[in-house]
Amino acid sequence: MAFTGKQLTTQLDADGTLTVQLNDKTWDDPKPGQVLIKVESTPINPSDLGLLFASADTDNAVYSPGKVVAKMPENATRAMKARHGMAMPAGNEAAGTVVAAGDGAEHLMGKRIACVPGTAYGSYALAEAQMAFPVDDGVSAEQAASSFVNPMTALGFTETMKLEGFTGIVHAAAASNLGQMLVKICLEDGIPLVNIVRSDDQVKLLRDLGATHVLNMTDADFMPKLIDAIAETKAMIGFDPIGGGTLAGQILTAMEAAASRGAAFSRYGSSEAKKVYIYGALDLGPTILNRAFGLTWDLAGWLLTPFMMKAGMEVVGRMRMRVMKDLTTTFASHYKARVSLEGMLTKEAVSEYNARRTGEKYLVVP
Amino acid sequence: MAFTGKQLTTQLDADGTLTVQLNDKTWDDPKPGQVLIKVESTPINPSDLGLLFASADTDNAVYSPGKVVAKMPENATRAMKARHGMAMPAGNEAAGTVVAAGDGAEHLMGKRIACVPGTAYGSYALAEAQMAFPVDDGVSAEQAASSFVNPMTALGFTETMKLEGFTGIVHAAAASNLGQMLVKICLEDGIPLVNIVRSDDQVKLLRDLGATHVLNMTDADFMPKLIDAIAETKAMIGFDPIGGGTLAGQILTAMEAAASRGAAFSRYGSSEAKKVYIYGALDLGPTILNRAFGLTWDLAGWLLTPFMMKAGMEVVGRMRMRVMKDLTTTFASHYKARVSLEGMLTKEAVSEYNARRTGEKYLVVP
Repeated sequence: MAFTGKQLTTQLDADGTLTVQLNDKTWDDPKPGQVLIKVESTPINPSDLGLLFASADTDNAVYSPGKVVAKMPENATRAMKARHGMAMPAGNEAAGTVVAAGDGAEHLMGKRIACVPGTAYGSYALAEAQMAFPVDDGVSAEQAASSFVNPMTALGFTETMKLEGFTGIVHAAAASNLGQMLVKICLEDGIPLVNIVRSDDQVKLLRDLGATHVLNMTDADFMPKLIDAIAETKAMIGFDPIGGGTLAGQILTAMEAAASRGAAFSRYGSSEAKKVYIYGALDLGPTILNRAFGLTWDLAGWLLTPFMMKAGMEVVGRMRMRVMKDLTTTFASHYKARVSLEGMLTKEAVSEYNARRTGEKYLVVP
Repeated sequence: MAFTGKQLTTQLDADGTLTVQLNDKTWDDPKPGQVLIKVESTPINPSDLGLLFASADTDNAVYSPGKVVAKMPENATRAMKARHGMAMPAGNEAAGTVVAAGDGAEHLMGKRIACVPGTAYGSYALAEAQMAFPVDDGVSAEQAASSFVNPMTALGFTETMKLEGFTGIVHAAAASNLGQMLVKICLEDGIPLVNIVRSDDQVKLLRDLGATHVLNMTDADFMPKLIDAIAETKAMIGFDPIGGGTLAGQILTAMEAAASRGAAFSRYGSSEAKKVYIYGALDLGPTILNRAFGLTWDLAGWLLTPFMMKAGMEVVGRMRMRVMKDLTTTFASHYKARVSLEGMLTKEAVSEYNARRTGEKYLVVP
């Protein structure tokens, strides 16, 4: 039986032309260990947008039904040389029903699963059975769609904290779906968490979830409050999905001020470990560090796949079990809008979801 | 017997006034494990300048014999609150002759030693015997003056490389005294080294020492050459004493380009570890990262004391032995000028050594 439908691809050419479009597609039979799902729900995460549109000028793109043609800046075009001329599928994660199963994956046949195909923006998608899990009968495809990227990232932060010997977390852009999960996880696990958000509405949102420390970075007294919160919680590891601008450096500065509070002057700063991970690029601009934080500090990139490889099968398995168990509570996601595959390529939709604003996540329902 | 003389102190007041001056001083007897030296030679290192003048406006300071009064910028004054009102001695390292020894340090009495008093800008200084070593008879005080900060830092880089599983080093501002030591160490130990310098004269200087990879960062083709050199040497750990500006990020960008050369496109960049340590602040301006290097990267502060604590007594002991043995060859230092304690507080001297230009190190001969 042949499965045919539409699949989205994104192609960057050497001249900087980016073409995102829907194509007719016939899917291969699943290989051993694989399943083919009929895609029912798939979110548009910031990590998808890095491949879909990257830094292309979507405001001035040409939109036609099922097709967007945009210009990529020259330096970005050059930096992504390895993808020139390739029509690449996209969509990290999805929920769908298994319509064909390869050897060793027959037990999933006919079941609704949450999975990580990497090609989820299509009518169907092939996925590895090992990273998939069947969802309970009462769980909708929408509820199961975002069961991987955000949940595993949020849990990955607490595991990283433990692995590196820290005891509390600072989180930026903390009102996101991921941030809300992290608030719930830290409450459940008794981990001190300092949340940084951008508006009073977001402060209220996280307080209503039970968060203790929620700081609005647009407040005039943000820095002294951040120092106080870090001094109180000893949160010396931070996670920042914004990347551009001064925030990562401000967090390190506040950690330094909290660590050296009451201590004798040292020209080199405190010797307490302070670390901030940048795990996204909501702001594609440069990271600016004023280095007012001595010489004991660390700023690094954080990415889910290498983290999972470092953490090992046992830890990852435990994390997956927890997500399965609490999919509709701790790991529940919220969406601003639902669109079809065609609908995700309209100017209105692209301009909204590509702005990567907190609380404005889109769900694709093919 | 009382030892009296002059000692330099640096004092920052809450109103931003920085006073660096010579004071009359009578030294205490050494405590157990300590020695008192008559200071014979002590260098002015960038790490000393951070305490001596920090970011004060020395161009517009008031100079009088044995005294400099300068203004510190407001934010720096605030950041250094813990030192307000304190007259702090300075001068990390020195060579001198032991004129008094505490219990357990009697074997050093009368000997010329290299040591780390932290208060070396004075007629005399107390130092811990444990971190000191006697120098051979033929070795002058000038030759022994810089036996700690630069040699241990240069050796610390190669030890850090090994500890963290890297196999080659990128070094910025590589024509410095420290950089020349690193060139010799890496040649002796067979460690691939990519040197980044600022002028053709500096290229020649390092090539004459036997360095293979020496790149002038002011050349138009600096970046492609840096990528080539890193690809060839697999130098994925860097050390940068400049701190401000774009160089640390450029090194990470070149590491990423070298690591992903010929590989398939990954929106997250290569998964090979890339790390740059900032170990100084020759440029006090902000560090600017354009983040064109995926998400597997690490930028951190490096400081000698915490490194030694992490490396442990055995490694540090081995490093000290090597410095002792090769003090006049591998670890030889060069100075642009020699000044007295009074001479180091003239406008001419301050404006030269506080510019922190490569190859313009001053030696103080009290």
